[in-house]
Amino acid sequence: MNYSKIPLSQTVTTLCKTHNVKHIVISPGSRNAPLTIGFTHDDYFECYSIVDERCAAFFALGIAQQIQKPVAVICTSGSALLNYYPAISEAYYSNIPLVVLSADRPKHLVGIGDGQTIKQKNVYGEHVLYSANLKLDLREGKYKNEEELPIFKSIEHKLELFLGLQKDIQTYNESEIHEALTISRLKMGPVHINIPFDEPLYETVDELSIAPKPYVLKSNIEKVDEFEIKSLLEVWQNAKRKMILVGVLQPNSVEVEWLQQIADDDSILVFTETTSNLHHPDFFPGIDKIIAPLNEDEFQQLQPNILLTFGGLVISKKIKAFLRQYKPNYHWHIGLHKANDTFFCLNEHIRLSPNTFFSTFLPLVEYYTKSDYKTSWLTVRQKRRKLHDAYLKTVPFSDFTVFNSILKSIPKQSQLQVGNSSAIRYTQLFQLRKDIDVFCNRGTSGIDGSTSTAIGAAVASKKRTTFVTGDLSFFYDSNALWNNYIPKNFRIIVINNNGGGIFRILPGHKNTDNFDAYFETKHCLTAEQLCNMYGFNYVKADDETSLKDKLETFYGASKQPRLLEVFTPSTINDKVLLDYFTFIK
Amino acid sequence: MNYSKIPLSQTVTTLCKTHNVKHIVISPGSRNAPLTIGFTHDDYFECYSIVDERCAAFFALGIAQQIQKPVAVICTSGSALLNYYPAISEAYYSNIPLVVLSADRPKHLVGIGDGQTIKQKNVYGEHVLYSANLKLDLREGKYKNEEELPIFKSIEHKLELFLGLQKDIQTYNESEIHEALTISRLKMGPVHINIPFDEPLYETVDELSIAPKPYVLKSNIEKVDEFEIKSLLEVWQNAKRKMILVGVLQPNSVEVEWLQQIADDDSILVFTETTSNLHHPDFFPGIDKIIAPLNEDEFQQLQPNILLTFGGLVISKKIKAFLRQYKPNYHWHIGLHKANDTFFCLNEHIRLSPNTFFSTFLPLVEYYTKSDYKTSWLTVRQKRRKLHDAYLKTVPFSDFTVFNSILKSIPKQSQLQVGNSSAIRYTQLFQLRKDIDVFCNRGTSGIDGSTSTAIGAAVASKKRTTFVTGDLSFFYDSNALWNNYIPKNFRIIVINNNGGGIFRILPGHKNTDNFDAYFETKHCLTAEQLCNMYGFNYVKADDETSLKDKLETFYGASKQPRLLEVFTPSTINDKVLLDYFTFIK
Repeated sequence: MNYSKIPLSQTVTTLCKTHNVKHIVISPGSRNAPLTIGFTHDDYFECYSIVDERCAAFFALGIAQQIQKPVAVICTSGSALLNYYPAISEAYYSNIPLVVLSADRPKHLVGIGDGQTIKQKNVYGEHVLYSANLKLDLREGKYKNEEELPIFKSIEHKLELFLGLQKDIQTYNESEIHEALTISRLKMGPVHINIPFDEPLYETVDELSIAPKPYVLKSNIEKVDEFEIKSLLEVWQNAKRKMILVGVLQPNSVEVEWLQQIADDDSILVFTETTSNLHHPDFFPGIDKIIAPLNEDEFQQLQPNILLTFGGLVISKKIKAFLRQYKPNYHWHIGLHKANDTFFCLNEHIRLSPNTFFSTFLPLVEYYTKSDYKTSWLTVRQKRRKLHDAYLKTVPFSDFTVFNSILKSIPKQSQLQVGNSSAIRYTQLFQLRKDIDVFCNRGTSGIDGSTSTAIGAAVASKKRTTFVTGDLSFFYDSNALWNNYIPKNFRIIVINNNGGGIFRILPGHKNTDNFDAYFETKHCLTAEQLCNMYGFNYVKADDETSLKDKLETFYGASKQPRLLEVFTPSTINDKVLLDYFTFIK
Repeated sequence: MNYSKIPLSQTVTTLCKTHNVKHIVISPGSRNAPLTIGFTHDDYFECYSIVDERCAAFFALGIAQQIQKPVAVICTSGSALLNYYPAISEAYYSNIPLVVLSADRPKHLVGIGDGQTIKQKNVYGEHVLYSANLKLDLREGKYKNEEELPIFKSIEHKLELFLGLQKDIQTYNESEIHEALTISRLKMGPVHINIPFDEPLYETVDELSIAPKPYVLKSNIEKVDEFEIKSLLEVWQNAKRKMILVGVLQPNSVEVEWLQQIADDDSILVFTETTSNLHHPDFFPGIDKIIAPLNEDEFQQLQPNILLTFGGLVISKKIKAFLRQYKPNYHWHIGLHKANDTFFCLNEHIRLSPNTFFSTFLPLVEYYTKSDYKTSWLTVRQKRRKLHDAYLKTVPFSDFTVFNSILKSIPKQSQLQVGNSSAIRYTQLFQLRKDIDVFCNRGTSGIDGSTSTAIGAAVASKKRTTFVTGDLSFFYDSNALWNNYIPKNFRIIVINNNGGGIFRILPGHKNTDNFDAYFETKHCLTAEQLCNMYGFNYVKADDETSLKDKLETFYGASKQPRLLEVFTPSTINDKVLLDYFTFIK
């Protein structure tokens, strides 16, 4: 085994192992050579090489989304780490543990006009849970001691050296790395470790020259506050209209036993989204289908006394608008991490995982309040489902019908990754089978890295992965395909309506030159050349028959990953969607 | 003419006109619709639509690099503006005026779990010269007054409204916009204006509802400090070894008269780089060619008494290492903006433009010190040039010979844009004709946006543009080609050595699996499919004959922009380059 000669690099790799950070996504560079050498020469680590740092970070995000453990990204100094930022912000709002290990120049070479040098310290501001700014390790660098350093830009640094604090620097660095990795793992979010290296960068040794202090990994201990739980209980039991709204959630987060008990209570309405990964025949997936056609009277009937939320961000804009206007008396959020006051009426943040909460709370429930809340809305749901099916039979080939066909085609027991904007919004309108796990970057809802995320997830998941995306999002993240790790059974479906179809649905002025150029951003691109370039098998469809035809063989075994591009008519899509909400009323 | 109904949007567009911000690069989105409507409906503005914000910002940077005036980029809320960050940091370190106009949600909708929402305020940290955080304009929004707002997250905001400070909000916003645009224009750098908009976003009106206060544009007044100038004069006149080192500089920054006077002085050595755009037969372009082969004695002979620098960042690592070790007694930097203490011996920052300084200082010089400083090094230069030419005849087809051929082929009176890493380093080794203007993103020296920058520059410049780049850099910024504004006479030359050739030159361990995967990042990609996709004419060459052949017709008139891909042998390239420095000794 080979190590970087630089003790600080050895410290970083060793402590990553201590914290079980196994997946390492590396972008090429020279300043980060000590880390690249360290990680790639140790079989413990699973290393990946991705050139474009924006894609690299989203790829790492996809892995971390699946394994729910910290994944590291490594880059050189300069603007490289800024390209991580879109994924960092997604990780921050989606509670995904991502660890940035950015190589930096020594402090005395920052801000003096050296190449590939920016102010890397704390560069992610409030979008990381912790910023560790490690200190230069002088023991194996070019400058052995204070006298040899060309200048001291920082008095602080000079003092450290003058006082012979090298040993303390090692202690400091170890402690900062432990802190960052612990926070990322336990609080589930992105952290930044900035690591200054001095030349020479490429020297290696056969044995470690460091001996990090022993460290005992911390773990989350959930503390049930019995007083709090009991105080909720009374309110809960007497409320006739309780709404549970579930945001983005990992599959299997809540045991079936508790889901069943919730479903048995006629005073509870459970609204789920496709990304909630939570299923029961009595739950209400497809929120917009219920809410969109309601009038004021009906809204009042839907208004809950208690709103209980868990999971991450909620996709449906309609439920947000509804609950902001028809506020519940109580809004309780269940979850270990932050609680959003999305509806401006949050009363209580119960810091437990949903499963711990339900397994503590539900057994205490003594009786179900008599209520027709659920049954009356199940009737509405039934009506809407019939109208939904009827509508499908009346409408021409369009985004709406394409999503219907595609979502039915997703292989059993597999994973579905969905792109942002119209792709996830359309997906929300259809009922997905419970054997499909659904993921979408809803932290920031950006179109900037969905393909890279899906590929990362496909690499990390044992289930096969299909990624459904719109054309703008796909072309935006086209570098995602520049990736040597894509599984052969990975599938992409691009719904290509020649631009940002979402903007046709919004209230702007359509069919003007301005609209075409600056909102819809029309183009004539297809995914075919990218498929040729990056070794994807390419198939296309542009009507119901060809789509059906292509889907039949699309998921079969293949030597290359496959991409299906479905061309839809942009001028019909928006009308079909807007009419849908009128039709199902 | 159509305006957004939102007064704040009207204010932004009107004040951009006041400050002569004419070029507006827009990425699609809904939150920024008020700005998109405002800018695209006014013929004063030259608007561009670019989907990928990373490319959009580098494209804008390219325009601003050419016109040397602020150029605006506009994006929606959420992670969109993070994709601007790589270009922002480049603009910051290259003194290029870039104005980010980011649309944001109203303050009370930030941090509560709404979609496409991050903490946009001050997100660029220390890499912008000013951050203006505008305040929500309530007059035309959904909420007409305090009572209607769903909640007040910020007491500050509540107070503003409670006290009926709407008029003051307008004054505040105007003042902040003026401040940001003035700083960007005068201090030449990036600024960020964050603009909260409330729904409805798409409404338009026929007449402006605002009447901004009159504003008189400020301008830079250069103040000559005669005392300072005179105090320099004595030192200058008596120094026998004066070195002038010129970094990145706009063409025609210094009048020929002063260049000639400098060249006439035998005690002055002028080191220029390809990006200095400064020429005289007695100057020394190709710094590395002079310095690389020197021994300690020769270094001591080269060591200057006075170092005078101007322009932006310096590419040559060798001159940096040399001057840090053989420090001059005096280092003076001439320039209106920041002065870098690159060699740890900066004594004086003279805050004048180089031309103002020389036109003030040089007429005061009474005599030229007798010195053989220049003549002795001109002899060395002459020897190196002969050896350079001789070397070219001995070496096989490789990056080195390809750069020689390409750089000779660049059309007369045209502009050359060069990609980072090995592309610019190779270019530095050859003497370019003085009729060619040369540009390269040396602020952060990133490979992340060189193509987009070159395209922006090609759009803004009256001269035709050729862009020379390595393969990693080209594929990294492949979305640059997703651009409807590329001039037909734009030319790209990709030197494809199947990976990061620069890493072969660095001291790592070559030809191991690890090296191939994580440093050189080998690939088998070509630019051909991207050319098909984005409407470029594609030609290729892989030896001296085919290269010569292709270059002959490459610059001729064409209906499409053209790309020439030159395949070079990665395993020979590094040897040819390393041997070069031995040969020219």
